[in-house]
Amino acid sequence: MRALCFDRVLELRTDYPDPPPAAGESVVRVALAGICGTDLEITRGYMAYRGVPGHEFVGRVVESADRALSGRRVVGEINAGCGRCRACADGLARHCPNRTVLGILGRDGAFAEYLRLPDANLKPLPDALADAAAVFVEPLAAAFEIFAQAALKRSDRIAILGDGRLGAMVALTLQAEDFAPIVAGRHREKLARLAGLGLTVADAAALEPGYDVVIDCTGNPHGLTRAIELARPRGTIILKSTAAAGTAINLAPIVINEITVIGSRCGRFEPAIGALAAGRIDPRPLIDEILPLEDGVAAFGLAADQSRFKILLRPS
Amino acid sequence: MRALCFDRVLELRTDYPDPPPAAGESVVRVALAGICGTDLEITRGYMAYRGVPGHEFVGRVVESADRALSGRRVVGEINAGCGRCRACADGLARHCPNRTVLGILGRDGAFAEYLRLPDANLKPLPDALADAAAVFVEPLAAAFEIFAQAALKRSDRIAILGDGRLGAMVALTLQAEDFAPIVAGRHREKLARLAGLGLTVADAAALEPGYDVVIDCTGNPHGLTRAIELARPRGTIILKSTAAAGTAINLAPIVINEITVIGSRCGRFEPAIGALAAGRIDPRPLIDEILPLEDGVAAFGLAADQSRFKILLRPS
Repeated sequence: MRALCFDRVLELRTDYPDPPPAAGESVVRVALAGICGTDLEITRGYMAYRGVPGHEFVGRVVESADRALSGRRVVGEINAGCGRCRACADGLARHCPNRTVLGILGRDGAFAEYLRLPDANLKPLPDALADAAAVFVEPLAAAFEIFAQAALKRSDRIAILGDGRLGAMVALTLQAEDFAPIVAGRHREKLARLAGLGLTVADAAALEPGYDVVIDCTGNPHGLTRAIELARPRGTIILKSTAAAGTAINLAPIVINEITVIGSRCGRFEPAIGALAAGRIDPRPLIDEILPLEDGVAAFGLAADQSRFKILLRPS
Repeated sequence: MRALCFDRVLELRTDYPDPPPAAGESVVRVALAGICGTDLEITRGYMAYRGVPGHEFVGRVVESADRALSGRRVVGEINAGCGRCRACADGLARHCPNRTVLGILGRDGAFAEYLRLPDANLKPLPDALADAAAVFVEPLAAAFEIFAQAALKRSDRIAILGDGRLGAMVALTLQAEDFAPIVAGRHREKLARLAGLGLTVADAAALEPGYDVVIDCTGNPHGLTRAIELARPRGTIILKSTAAAGTAINLAPIVINEITVIGSRCGRFEPAIGALAAGRIDPRPLIDEILPLEDGVAAFGLAADQSRFKILLRPS
């Protein structure tokens, strides 16, 4: 099959082997797949991943032993647990120590004609939900995860640091749930586009300290340092961005101001599907380009351009 | 008066001015004062503090407009708020942005014959509570603060990193509240002394990952990195130690494992006074030496010796 493959360099391959059969898994023909910051980090060495990247997708089940899935249009949770450990028993396969992760860890991903995932990971979509919206389920689920971890109050002063893909997802999600965040970034055009979606925006350098909640979506290890400056004493920082590099951080203010830092990653898909299907979130204005898989390497270049939001690939 | 003073170097002065009068404040003659890790950090540049260090003390009120305090034996909360801001209104003077902090920020401390604190900061002691126990109220209050910030469960697997003063205070406090922590350190003699107090101890290098709660009391910026290794996915790290230096930290595991990091500093004095008065905690076996103020510089040297727990000064 055709697949975008990363092995020290990113390249299109036309002879990539089809995903190997595995019990309890279905084959999905990928319709659309989104490029996210983690994909870019992978091409810089994150997770030392080798294989097909891509974990945001919508597609159709073309091969399955599960009749409820056959032929259905689906999205898929990206963490595949062992099914036998305590984390899996607690419904937290995304923390299974033996997990594979689609396009990130030990499992080929979505920038290919076909992918495989366990049947239990696949979530059929309502017909009314367009592919171009459904492809955002995975990053929106990660944004909804914030509510599973932190008890935010509607009256909280909330700052989102980062005007990129991740910041936009978090902002749209908080907006849909009746919170009133301010999105802070450094890219005037992107801030203007976010303002056009009804979001309150600000230049990142202009924020004053005192926020109850600061959500770091910068994708930059310095984001935490800025978040520490902006959080009020006893405030909460939600750390959303992962980065390959370590960075020097002065931890003393976390202790002195008794700040709580919550690392937050993937989330359950159901709240995101529900919000998209109900029209409470429509991320489609964030799509800059939809390119064929053949243009995948160029698409990564576009996605790395700080003035863009979302680049999608259309593998089939 | 006699005072131990830090201004680039630590030295004993015999002509140090008495603490200046201030409305609503009382004068305390210091009976005993403890040297803690923060004092050592101050002599390395922490908080850029200049003046008399020392914030763990017990003494007697020798001058006060408050009849309930006059002549009483007291300990004192170290943060003095402005009394007018939102933090002060919320009973959180220790987070007042305009606060002074005894011996740490803008207010001379306890390594002197006399100190001043606002009347509201001074807590009279029950007669039965010995000075040598009461001098531990401040660091124990900081340990009790953990319960105000994190909902620990008695069944939690809890590791305390650091076999020093801070680790010992936290361990004794958790033990008194019927938790069963393991104290991990690198100093065999100190671990043996802690084991003698009924605590479970371990060599820090021997711990295996999977703790529900890891409490960093190392006083070392690398403590957080080790805590991240030891915490289970969705686990909690309580960051107790402050350090002057920044350090390079790989933040990705905090996000990937959805760890919560809670900075924790000073606490209310009442729970600590109660536990000491009831005999549920007796930290006196941790006292290595009680030295006169004149030996203060040497006492700091002893306190920096990694084989010691607690060095006390007797200023008067």
